[in-house]
Amino acid sequence: MIRVVHYGLGPIGASIARVAAARQDVELVGGIEVDPAKVGRDLGEVIGLDHPLAVRVAADAAATLEATRPDVVIHATGSHLAQVAPQLREAIDAGAFVVSTCEELSYPFETSAEVAADLDRLARERQVALVGTGINPGFAMDTLPLALTAVSQRVELVHVHRRQDAALRRLPLQRKVGAGLTVAQFEERVRDGSVRHVGLPESVYALAHGLGWQIERLEDQIEPVLATEETHSADIVVAPGQVLGVRQVARGIVNGRAAIVLELEMYLGAENPRDHIAVEGVPRIDVSVNEGTHGDLATAAILVNAIPSVLRAEPGLRVMEELPLVHYRG
Amino acid sequence: MIRVVHYGLGPIGASIARVAAARQDVELVGGIEVDPAKVGRDLGEVIGLDHPLAVRVAADAAATLEATRPDVVIHATGSHLAQVAPQLREAIDAGAFVVSTCEELSYPFETSAEVAADLDRLARERQVALVGTGINPGFAMDTLPLALTAVSQRVELVHVHRRQDAALRRLPLQRKVGAGLTVAQFEERVRDGSVRHVGLPESVYALAHGLGWQIERLEDQIEPVLATEETHSADIVVAPGQVLGVRQVARGIVNGRAAIVLELEMYLGAENPRDHIAVEGVPRIDVSVNEGTHGDLATAAILVNAIPSVLRAEPGLRVMEELPLVHYRG
Repeated sequence: MIRVVHYGLGPIGASIARVAAARQDVELVGGIEVDPAKVGRDLGEVIGLDHPLAVRVAADAAATLEATRPDVVIHATGSHLAQVAPQLREAIDAGAFVVSTCEELSYPFETSAEVAADLDRLARERQVALVGTGINPGFAMDTLPLALTAVSQRVELVHVHRRQDAALRRLPLQRKVGAGLTVAQFEERVRDGSVRHVGLPESVYALAHGLGWQIERLEDQIEPVLATEETHSADIVVAPGQVLGVRQVARGIVNGRAAIVLELEMYLGAENPRDHIAVEGVPRIDVSVNEGTHGDLATAAILVNAIPSVLRAEPGLRVMEELPLVHYRG
Repeated sequence: MIRVVHYGLGPIGASIARVAAARQDVELVGGIEVDPAKVGRDLGEVIGLDHPLAVRVAADAAATLEATRPDVVIHATGSHLAQVAPQLREAIDAGAFVVSTCEELSYPFETSAEVAADLDRLARERQVALVGTGINPGFAMDTLPLALTAVSQRVELVHVHRRQDAALRRLPLQRKVGAGLTVAQFEERVRDGSVRHVGLPESVYALAHGLGWQIERLEDQIEPVLATEETHSADIVVAPGQVLGVRQVARGIVNGRAAIVLELEMYLGAENPRDHIAVEGVPRIDVSVNEGTHGDLATAAILVNAIPSVLRAEPGLRVMEELPLVHYRG
């Protein structure tokens, strides 16, 4: 049995814990969460199981890690590495392997080099590995395209286009992409950074590293997708001229040209949602993930599916391509 | 520089060697081939480069391995493990890591358990790793579907359907799928085993192993695809009623039902050639590799792309899912 502590029990953390609870080789031995509404309650109840787990959710991470001595910490508290790094250090210090949803951890060597070096050193000292993963970053726009290049004699351009219908996602995500805002409000959110998808640059850097390419410059553009007619989700009504969601394009410039183009559209009512991956080279590769990768279900899955691979990884701060293949095991 | 010896310089072996020759971190230090038309000639000339490599092709494997001491042997001499196992042992004995096109090596633990155990033991002794890979088996119907389950909370059924237009492939492959035969001739070829695609059971077992499933029974059916009108490739004309090619279906039975279904169609004039992967479960995954994976170009690529991953693998006989992600690196 693999002993797991869940660090962060918000909606994502709880959904990961539910997937972990369904696996026969995983035992949930602790839950860490600062929300006073969850502290002190049974972990099974907090994550929405129909049975208790005889484990109390606690706010004190160090005490929980000390008391439970987990093999693995599943960490799901935030997107920004600088903010969550102290939590990751606590987990590593306790001798646990770590799988984290932190987007900036998925490839931190360019954007957070110092924090990355510190975590890597600490993990090597403690002989554990940690990895940041998820669907995006972590899979749909980086690891999967890279996996497809297994059949490439030569690669010249990687173009990933991910188009999601935000109306099918939970309300916080609809809000996050700006659905229902005016253009002025959207631009305000762009300025304060709250509408931006975190992790697109990390995907560009992860892909470039895998392909052996040096990114000279990274462009990260963002613009609103506007409603031309009244558009509904189950939760929001968007009037014509208001914002349905977001289109964000990151380009990695290699030798003066955009060699990696990652295009992410998330808006209410997006037609033909899918992930499309085109690898220009020899041979040409053209792959469609029809309907796209379901963000919420898939994120919970990949965090749990990564556990056996991270346990077999070399100590240190790892990226997805360095792990034995991450996959489902029933 | 990674020092590579190419063991087997038929059409596939030569195409792999050409891809390897184009890589900056690979040095071709030897070529082994029994064909008297190739022995003694320059390796660059034999594989079709426009420049010599100052390496003579030799028939004596042991002497070549002893003289060159390669880091890696790329092995491409045959599909059947029992026949090529002595060659693999020679390479391992010389302390080389091995990447092989041998289809039965891709997952030999069910179909060739004794040979597999012997090679595994020898590789561990010599602290090297070997792997059998390619497109099919090795990628399109096993490793790629397994990689897609990274996002699965639960998997119930994996169905891979690969449909290729054999008219676009080299003549020996057109012949191998039975193009131009009468039905009686095709059935004769089925009986003597020469028309069967080698490796479909290996893909079923590799997938099942990854998914943690136990195969109770494996079905492997084969039937001709017949021409309804005169059909041409660049090399062959097939009359109505004659054979265009082959349809082969392997089913892995788990808990009494076909949980893995691998369907391979290769015939002249196949419309809408593509690989389609459906994973039934939570979430449902539906992926199309449009136009399919180009067998000849892709096989050469994946053998070379696997080199860095096999060099970082744990010693022993490995399968693809155990390696760090195999991908292109420029």
